[in-house]
Amino acid sequence: MPKTSDQTRRRRADDARVVADVLRRGIDRGERTGALDEQQLAAEFSVSRNAIRDALALLCSQGQIDRAPRIGTHVVRRKAEHGIDALRGLKETLVEHGRVRNEVRVATLVRSPAAVARRLALAPGAEVVYIERLRLLDDEPVSLDLTYLASDVGVPILDHDLENTDVFTLLERVSGQRLHSAEQSVEAASADPHSAANLDVPAGTALLLIERLARLGPEARPVDLEYLRMRSDRITLHATALRDTHPNGEAR
Amino acid sequence: MPKTSDQTRRRRADDARVVADVLRRGIDRGERTGALDEQQLAAEFSVSRNAIRDALALLCSQGQIDRAPRIGTHVVRRKAEHGIDALRGLKETLVEHGRVRNEVRVATLVRSPAAVARRLALAPGAEVVYIERLRLLDDEPVSLDLTYLASDVGVPILDHDLENTDVFTLLERVSGQRLHSAEQSVEAASADPHSAANLDVPAGTALLLIERLARLGPEARPVDLEYLRMRSDRITLHATALRDTHPNGEAR
Repeated sequence: MPKTSDQTRRRRADDARVVADVLRRGIDRGERTGALDEQQLAAEFSVSRNAIRDALALLCSQGQIDRAPRIGTHVVRRKAEHGIDALRGLKETLVEHGRVRNEVRVATLVRSPAAVARRLALAPGAEVVYIERLRLLDDEPVSLDLTYLASDVGVPILDHDLENTDVFTLLERVSGQRLHSAEQSVEAASADPHSAANLDVPAGTALLLIERLARLGPEARPVDLEYLRMRSDRITLHATALRDTHPNGEAR
Repeated sequence: MPKTSDQTRRRRADDARVVADVLRRGIDRGERTGALDEQQLAAEFSVSRNAIRDALALLCSQGQIDRAPRIGTHVVRRKAEHGIDALRGLKETLVEHGRVRNEVRVATLVRSPAAVARRLALAPGAEVVYIERLRLLDDEPVSLDLTYLASDVGVPILDHDLENTDVFTLLERVSGQRLHSAEQSVEAASADPHSAANLDVPAGTALLLIERLARLGPEARPVDLEYLRMRSDRITLHATALRDTHPNGEAR
């Protein structure tokens, strides 16, 4: 029975998606660089050239490749990987990718919203330090970070070099304690016009939205609540998971 | 000196963003339910009611709250949390949130693209099992999953109940081995029209895009390469990070 054109269209869209997924990660990992050849890709993935063209259009719209007449299709750049299974600041993480600099937009004491006080285990309305930073990698904005700090560690931090130092590093310096751990939640969200302008991306661009509650010292006291908006075209989150066990030792 | 209207507009947008961030996570965590009152929120966050209105508009556009004349503003629902520090299938993860069912769209042997073969440590062009599933939580699509499996474990899986069982569970069943670990990469991406139609969201919606390479048995053999597209309005990723150390034991 001949395929209907509906089935053909659906198959082509499905093929394009899987090709785009595999290529995207190959580019991120630095395995694919330079020029991309449609015919070669069609042979590698055993799909039509139309599906390859659709896949390349998807990657192009996400800024991972460039296409131009006569010049052809080229990989633009790979992305930085940010491990979210180890607790590190952006500067610590991206040290191999370039120079991180922070544009400090706000750094002040505020009355904590009830929800923030609760997360930091403070009395409702307690004063907290609020910091807003635009973080730049080689002068390109990559993350817009909002940070609430318990005031005993936050106030001393205000005297330090927030432009060139991660808050994590400063927290350890001013407290004399090690960071303990952090709970992180990751979502995807479209950039509102204001965030988009700050991060120098088109409004509506999909961003990674991370909430991070960092804990300090052997008591694991929650001292640092952050809301990070990261450009997903520049940073990929990375985590290694281990298979956990039931109490009886069996796989779930 | 009086503020310029530019400064005022910028401050209002900044206020709206931080309020939206804090509210969003409160809703996700189930701490905020039912009606939201603009005046109360303005007092809690010490910002203008205009900033609160902008924040609620942001959350409304992301489907977390509903606003209607006379009825007011209400939280729609909280989201499910998917831990990415433990290696679990979606059904294992969401067992408390509802019934997971899989619509199996493709399940077949294919010639592996070179990039896939490399990740699975197979010879170029080796046959692999390819599975495409739309995953539904209580009959609502939440994730569109593409899976490549090494054929020795993948072929036996094709005879099992893929509609109602996680691939992770089946991998352990057919191999008689435990899963070992997985490397995961997380990005945000706008839904292309075809993915959007499958997941029943507007085109352009920000989705979580996860690549996961799962390893099996004591040798940690890579057997399962997955590309998952998750609805961020239904699922939040969660991870706990520990502070790592330099070889000399000092904090980085």
